[in-house]
Amino acid sequence: MPIPLAASLSRRRAQTLRSLLEVPGPPLIIGVAGDSSAGKTTYTNGLRRMLGDDIVGTIEMDGYHKEDRATRARTGRSPLDPEMNHLGLLREHLEALRRGESVHLRRYDHGTGTFIAPQPFSPKPILVLEGLHALYPEFTSLLDYTVFVDPARDIKLGWKIARDTQFRGHRVEPLADEIRKREAAFRRWIEFQKTDANVVIKINRSKLKLLANEEYWGDRPPEGCFHMELIFQPAHTPLPPLRMSFSLAKMLGEDPLPFALAVVPRSYWGRRANAIHLDGLMPPRAVHVLQGQIERFTGIEVTDSHLSGIRKHERMPAIVFTQLLVTWPILEHIANLLEKRAASAGVTPVSRIEPQDSDDELP
Amino acid sequence: MPIPLAASLSRRRAQTLRSLLEVPGPPLIIGVAGDSSAGKTTYTNGLRRMLGDDIVGTIEMDGYHKEDRATRARTGRSPLDPEMNHLGLLREHLEALRRGESVHLRRYDHGTGTFIAPQPFSPKPILVLEGLHALYPEFTSLLDYTVFVDPARDIKLGWKIARDTQFRGHRVEPLADEIRKREAAFRRWIEFQKTDANVVIKINRSKLKLLANEEYWGDRPPEGCFHMELIFQPAHTPLPPLRMSFSLAKMLGEDPLPFALAVVPRSYWGRRANAIHLDGLMPPRAVHVLQGQIERFTGIEVTDSHLSGIRKHERMPAIVFTQLLVTWPILEHIANLLEKRAASAGVTPVSRIEPQDSDDELP
Repeated sequence: MPIPLAASLSRRRAQTLRSLLEVPGPPLIIGVAGDSSAGKTTYTNGLRRMLGDDIVGTIEMDGYHKEDRATRARTGRSPLDPEMNHLGLLREHLEALRRGESVHLRRYDHGTGTFIAPQPFSPKPILVLEGLHALYPEFTSLLDYTVFVDPARDIKLGWKIARDTQFRGHRVEPLADEIRKREAAFRRWIEFQKTDANVVIKINRSKLKLLANEEYWGDRPPEGCFHMELIFQPAHTPLPPLRMSFSLAKMLGEDPLPFALAVVPRSYWGRRANAIHLDGLMPPRAVHVLQGQIERFTGIEVTDSHLSGIRKHERMPAIVFTQLLVTWPILEHIANLLEKRAASAGVTPVSRIEPQDSDDELP
Repeated sequence: MPIPLAASLSRRRAQTLRSLLEVPGPPLIIGVAGDSSAGKTTYTNGLRRMLGDDIVGTIEMDGYHKEDRATRARTGRSPLDPEMNHLGLLREHLEALRRGESVHLRRYDHGTGTFIAPQPFSPKPILVLEGLHALYPEFTSLLDYTVFVDPARDIKLGWKIARDTQFRGHRVEPLADEIRKREAAFRRWIEFQKTDANVVIKINRSKLKLLANEEYWGDRPPEGCFHMELIFQPAHTPLPPLRMSFSLAKMLGEDPLPFALAVVPRSYWGRRANAIHLDGLMPPRAVHVLQGQIERFTGIEVTDSHLSGIRKHERMPAIVFTQLLVTWPILEHIANLLEKRAASAGVTPVSRIEPQDSDDELP
């Protein structure tokens, strides 16, 4: 007897992602777009850490710029202009990877501002396309999930100045000028990509201070805190039950963690979306529960030193939790696609997860 | 061997409040102050519902006004002026109740705006002193816990107009004039009481709309929603572990509950305080868990139709959760006082609660 649709949708996934990935098929591609210094790599790395380098490969689009830094200084053209990028060539490369073929990825060295020798690159089960134009019409038909990282202008500017002067050999003053010019270019060529993304990650200065008062915090919030707004397209397939919990006793006690969590249905560019707001320091338990769920689901334990460090750390900025929170629906979405593929191939991956106590009905 | 202090503090309470109340002693008194129409009764009733009418008695201070409505219309004096209230007499009545004596409480009928016959009133284990001047210096030495209810001016005004015209026989126009005059009186005579309250309940218009957008919600938040800010003096004795949990799956799904929760340490009138912000609709599970904890702790199951109704209701405004959230530390505080009293009387109340799995260490 077939399982009724609702029951089948709400039951926990029976296979780990790892076992689903053993079913042969073309790579799945996740697009991560956003301005330079938006923090795209943070989310890309989050996914790679969760699944491992053998499963996730990253394609950095900077290698497909037409001009290097010296040339740009002469021509005055912006790499944000799609015309100044080999998007057609990149599309061909992605199509080849989809067919299972290896390609030579073009590469750019941010330290020197020059192109370096292309590198042979073989398809992996999951590919992340990361760059300024990752959600451009050239690519959308190839993408299985789309992310747009959207920090507020002042935050982006601070990050860009810090990174370019420290690691990319720029000087501060011409850079500040360049950034001001880039804002118009960002609006013109980059920003529109967010209108259809599966998730948009907006990053603002922490607003917790507005809820407290100057007297307590002076003029800065706890270190590393941002106000994150995640704008999700509502999940088509219900996700497995997973709770995030807060101690009321701590909230009333002597040293409460400052944090904010809000969920609001909203419209975003005319479509229905769920906005999740996070700010301040997240309870470590919430982070561990979510990470544990992802590990159970992928079948891969995260041993990475970065996350192990976080695991022991007491005060975790919302931005860390956000990385996990964004990763979860991406992985669930990938798993759904892989399950469909497995079903149509007539393959039944081995179950590796025991069903747990369900509380689907509770909000 | 004596239990080390930390362990003894963090273990779950061994007695129900009901069993502790069997130890004889003077009544405990909780002061609930705030402007007319601030919503004081909401919190007073919450406590009475949780413990029952046999345990909680309410003293309404309006009976101690010096002038009835007709007289005030002639003299132009305000009942907010402490001089226009028999505070000394009320203090004598409270002292008598503390000694276990009955008194005749003065009474005022808001429907007719006149005084009615005083009523005999016997002490109960817990008394709630509710009124404009409940936290005045005349009373503070008699109070075991203090609450100030502090709605924003526009909300208070809306509530007062609605209540006074519907139930108290006022007409709208002179009332609006009176309310404007009362604001100055409120500042002068009432508001300062909040500076030392154990908890201040601030009520504002819902701010969730600011997090979403007009396009989605139009110009009103979900019905019955307010932005509550609870400003607690941090609990001296750690509270038993109690968690409030949210479904991440729902947050990402098709019909998320709009809500906000934030906790920020702040200063309040120069002292350290914890601010808990609540807005929107709370997950029913969070409400049930908290109510269950309170019931386990009091040893009294809430059968009241109001809360039973809520229990089954799917969408609970934050204001309902707030009632419970305020009640919990009040009850814990009372239980601590009663435990000390029992200990000094050499009485050991019978344990009625099994210890549960502890997660004290987790925030």
